[in-house]
Amino acid sequence: MNTIAYHNLDYRIQFASKGLKEAIMKKINLKTKPVGALGQLENLALQICLIQQSLTPKLNNPALAIFAGDHGIARSGVSAYPQEVTFQMVYNFLNGGAAINVFCKQHDIMVKIVDAGVNHDFPTHADLIDAKIRKGTKNMLEGPAMTEKECRMAFEMSGNLVDELWQNGSNIIGFGEMGIGNTSSASLIMSQIMELPLSACIGTGTGLDQEGLDRKLTVLQQILSKNPVDQSDPMAVISTFGGYEIAMICGGMLKAAEHKMIILVDGFIATSALLIASSLYPEVLDYCIFGHQSEEKGHQAMLEFLGAKPVLRLGMRLGEGTGATLAYPIIESAVNFMNQMASFDQAGVSKHS
Amino acid sequence: MNTIAYHNLDYRIQFASKGLKEAIMKKINLKTKPVGALGQLENLALQICLIQQSLTPKLNNPALAIFAGDHGIARSGVSAYPQEVTFQMVYNFLNGGAAINVFCKQHDIMVKIVDAGVNHDFPTHADLIDAKIRKGTKNMLEGPAMTEKECRMAFEMSGNLVDELWQNGSNIIGFGEMGIGNTSSASLIMSQIMELPLSACIGTGTGLDQEGLDRKLTVLQQILSKNPVDQSDPMAVISTFGGYEIAMICGGMLKAAEHKMIILVDGFIATSALLIASSLYPEVLDYCIFGHQSEEKGHQAMLEFLGAKPVLRLGMRLGEGTGATLAYPIIESAVNFMNQMASFDQAGVSKHS
Repeated sequence: MNTIAYHNLDYRIQFASKGLKEAIMKKINLKTKPVGALGQLENLALQICLIQQSLTPKLNNPALAIFAGDHGIARSGVSAYPQEVTFQMVYNFLNGGAAINVFCKQHDIMVKIVDAGVNHDFPTHADLIDAKIRKGTKNMLEGPAMTEKECRMAFEMSGNLVDELWQNGSNIIGFGEMGIGNTSSASLIMSQIMELPLSACIGTGTGLDQEGLDRKLTVLQQILSKNPVDQSDPMAVISTFGGYEIAMICGGMLKAAEHKMIILVDGFIATSALLIASSLYPEVLDYCIFGHQSEEKGHQAMLEFLGAKPVLRLGMRLGEGTGATLAYPIIESAVNFMNQMASFDQAGVSKHS
Repeated sequence: MNTIAYHNLDYRIQFASKGLKEAIMKKINLKTKPVGALGQLENLALQICLIQQSLTPKLNNPALAIFAGDHGIARSGVSAYPQEVTFQMVYNFLNGGAAINVFCKQHDIMVKIVDAGVNHDFPTHADLIDAKIRKGTKNMLEGPAMTEKECRMAFEMSGNLVDELWQNGSNIIGFGEMGIGNTSSASLIMSQIMELPLSACIGTGTGLDQEGLDRKLTVLQQILSKNPVDQSDPMAVISTFGGYEIAMICGGMLKAAEHKMIILVDGFIATSALLIASSLYPEVLDYCIFGHQSEEKGHQAMLEFLGAKPVLRLGMRLGEGTGATLAYPIIESAVNFMNQMASFDQAGVSKHS
């Protein structure tokens, strides 16, 4: 077991075993189709079989956790929407009216809605998990978004949720988010981890115009000047620039990898959490399937940095976990062809001449 | 009603009405998401709503018709597989063991298996539709693949099947194919309709090596020399270079468009049928959703020629209708968000500031 301890984190995450690789490839190649003809579906099947160390992979009790959190920086003109949209959208999730509800219902994926730090007092609700750290992060123009202690608390709370889902039989989990202003956090994390200028990391988010984009760049540059961090220290980067929802996704991914669950990665925000998670534990990437490539400008570069090939490229930029969820049936198809397609011998079909 | 008669074909195909466009766009833009944030899903929703002239679109009794046919040219070394794989795969379809069976089962899509002209005597089978024109096309090195009369017969037979499906309530249909050697037909059709040199239209099909590819190019060039046709005459092009399965897909698409059904377009072969169908009736394109971009070399150029944006790009090259079928849940998501997502007003969420 490869146990790494950074910052006294004690996740026990292993690379997926390569043990069955030859047998898995043989099974794929003997299916009644030309070798390689199912393209990326074959890569997905291989990855899932390796994760599960099985020739008959299964997707059990799929779950999607949405973490909602507010950002102090939202008050500084970095988003096209006002901050209250975060809590309003949480009510929308609870009422089943958001895009992510619709897509999870379609694919029979259980949705867990988590208040990671929304600037609103919610009444008790059976479907809302209260993991509120604070009512939004600090405005990064005035200092770090959160303390490292708060960040660890966020890791722990989402880890507990993932533990619970795993104990209830889930072996595949997507992570979504809601938080007005959180593309700013994601861009700052991207610039630090990937060592890129901010201009290469920012985009229009939920719909800024050019003037808004210019203002966002100026604000983010001021934030960087105000908060010098050690780029090689992922925990410092996420504490300084993250959001509570981003920290919870990061911690949730690490815990899911510890349990060898399949991790469905969504778009720009979720991938920024993975930039941190994979800087801490590179092993986590073995468990990740990248649902889609977002339209948000920096996402393609993030995916390339991680060596990731997204399942979908639909020009979406909604977050909530929607890109991860729309990819679910494709992942299911990869599992189904492994389990259900006939081999050349079974079907009596002649092989390649 | 815009009735076009080429070659005495009498399909009555209308462009989709633009009547409700403004109301549809308004409904899409008032859903609880940033404007445009669902990307291609929003385009799909608009297209389906226009086809159905409805703000509450529905996908009813989805069907996939697989047409299998043999090709005289298969005996001249243009494929990596022997001709008998065509009939062997038909048995595989009937037994539910092929990729297309697995994916249609996953999405509850009805499969219709059609013998369009396989070089094999099948015993009577409840699930096999006998539409055999002949036991394979003629070898195009010796003359046209089929007569124009046979081609019209193929159109009629698949049209009858589509009529029946439509009468049984299907409003969305995919077309798949099986036929060893049929990438050669598709490449020849592509070169004629798109006026491109053959070298730009051929690919490795089910898995040719470089030597095989060189041989394929030589054979197809010989076929072109042997069979001069009027490129502006789509019926001559498909009769000379087509396969029975390609002709049936073409006729099936025209009939589906006549009924205003949604047409799910698969890969290289199915799109070659659409090149013919849309040359005859450009209106048919309004009803087409392009499931995927195939890995077969010429497919991307075909899609660009048709102004088509594929839903998926998974590096697949299997045919059978698999690319069309894998896109089905994404299309369903487009319909679902239109019908199920809350609007800003319904959810009490603030709009763009």
